[in-house]
Amino acid sequence: MKALRFTNNRLAVADVPPPNAENEALVRITRSGICNTDLEITRGYAGFEGTLGHEFVGVVERAFDRPEIVGKRVVGGINAGCGTCELCLAGDPRHCPTRTVLGIVGRDGAHAEFLQLPSRNLVAVPDNVTDEQAVFAEPLAAAWGVIDATSIHKWERLAIIGDGKLGLLCSKALEGGVDDMTLIGKHRSKVAIAEKAGAQGVLLDQVTPGMERQFDIVIEASGSEAGFSTALDLVKPRGRIVLKSTFHGTLSLDPARIVVDEISIIGSRCGKMTSGIQILKDGRVSVDDMITDTFPLTEGVTAMKRASEKGVLKVLLDPHI
Amino acid sequence: MKALRFTNNRLAVADVPPPNAENEALVRITRSGICNTDLEITRGYAGFEGTLGHEFVGVVERAFDRPEIVGKRVVGGINAGCGTCELCLAGDPRHCPTRTVLGIVGRDGAHAEFLQLPSRNLVAVPDNVTDEQAVFAEPLAAAWGVIDATSIHKWERLAIIGDGKLGLLCSKALEGGVDDMTLIGKHRSKVAIAEKAGAQGVLLDQVTPGMERQFDIVIEASGSEAGFSTALDLVKPRGRIVLKSTFHGTLSLDPARIVVDEISIIGSRCGKMTSGIQILKDGRVSVDDMITDTFPLTEGVTAMKRASEKGVLKVLLDPHI
Repeated sequence: MKALRFTNNRLAVADVPPPNAENEALVRITRSGICNTDLEITRGYAGFEGTLGHEFVGVVERAFDRPEIVGKRVVGGINAGCGTCELCLAGDPRHCPTRTVLGIVGRDGAHAEFLQLPSRNLVAVPDNVTDEQAVFAEPLAAAWGVIDATSIHKWERLAIIGDGKLGLLCSKALEGGVDDMTLIGKHRSKVAIAEKAGAQGVLLDQVTPGMERQFDIVIEASGSEAGFSTALDLVKPRGRIVLKSTFHGTLSLDPARIVVDEISIIGSRCGKMTSGIQILKDGRVSVDDMITDTFPLTEGVTAMKRASEKGVLKVLLDPHI
Repeated sequence: MKALRFTNNRLAVADVPPPNAENEALVRITRSGICNTDLEITRGYAGFEGTLGHEFVGVVERAFDRPEIVGKRVVGGINAGCGTCELCLAGDPRHCPTRTVLGIVGRDGAHAEFLQLPSRNLVAVPDNVTDEQAVFAEPLAAAWGVIDATSIHKWERLAIIGDGKLGLLCSKALEGGVDDMTLIGKHRSKVAIAEKAGAQGVLLDQVTPGMERQFDIVIEASGSEAGFSTALDLVKPRGRIVLKSTFHGTLSLDPARIVVDEISIIGSRCGKMTSGIQILKDGRVSVDDMITDTFPLTEGVTAMKRASEKGVLKVLLDPHI
């Protein structure tokens, strides 16, 4: 089968044998989505080598231990736990110490014709959710994960740093959950998407000293040191900064600021796929304005390049065109 | 009056006029305690110039707006708010944006014969608490502030990094609150004090790889980059690091570790003086083994030097010997 792989520091579409582990479900991919993490991996993040991609929708071809889902459209949780540790037994493999992660850690990913995952990771897609929408279940779940990371009160002032896919999805996921939401970004056209979700859009060069120390919660979704620095400027004493973006680099931090102002910095990664699917099923969040382009899988290298360009939002891959 | 002052990058005992603002209470100091923050200020922290010191016990000489406390033994909250902002009106000036802080920000401190503070900052000392013990109300309140910063469950594994005054007071304040407490320090004699509080004492060079990612909560009380790095090693996925120490420097941080492992870093500074006094009144915590030395105020420079030596815990100043 064809797969978009990153090996020996080189990105290429290659022919590889399809996955064949009989203790996992086999999924035929219908769409996969390119995430910034895919781009970060090609810059050295996580030291991953193999097939990229962790956002997908597909159809189950085989699942010996869960035959009722064969033929169903599914999305999937990306963390595959050992199945036997305390965390896995509690039903949440996201922090299993020996987990593999689809297209990120020790497991080939979704930019391919087929993937395999433990069948328990798969979640059926309701009929009213299209394939293009279902690809967003994973990043939407991650955006929704902010709520799991810190309870947000409706009266709190919230700022999101970053008008990339993750920042915009956060604004969409949190629409209605807070009365006062501001999204700070670099691109007028992207910020406008957050404005449709009820956020006040502010361009980065319009951030004023008057905005400093005004926000109860700041979500850092830009994945940059500058974004983190802005988050520190904006957060109130006793406020919370939620770090959502994984990126390759180092942050520097004045510990006195954190201690004196009693700020919390909260890391947040994957959400629950069932939350992502529920949001889409309810029609609470529109994601159609988030898709910039769709490429055939065979043009995966071009698609990755396109995804890294300014102003571009979600780029999808389709293995069947 | 005599006062231990840091001005023009020089530490000296000087003769200065006693404080005389009639809208604040005047307190005659009976003991003050040297905190690491005092030492950090002489290394550039907070850019403070003036009389050092923020841990004290004394007797109220004058308080026009609260005459009932005149003649009483008191300790005092170190943050003096504007009295009119939202935070001050809610009774908690610790984050008032225009606050001054005793001996730290814009307000002469406690290593002197007299100090002044808003009378509402003063808390009476119960008869069963000695002067030497009462000086610990402020740092004990700060240690207790960990509980305000993050709720701690009895079944959680807790580690404290640092066997200095703050780390040891944290172990004492938390005694009985968690079943499994470890204190990691550099000095056998200091670590032994935490062991008396029920902690497992571990010397820094005995920290093993097997301890990594094992702790639900890690309190960083060493005030060093190395301590923070150890905290990151020890904390579990989804665990919390409480930063207690203010120090002059920069931390560097791998954001991917924070995000992927969903770690929280929580800054915590001052506690409530009423908590500190209550702990001492109840006799729950013994602080007598924390006092290394007492010097006359006139030997304040020597006392500060002594406080900075290895193995030394609390050094007190007495203006009346």
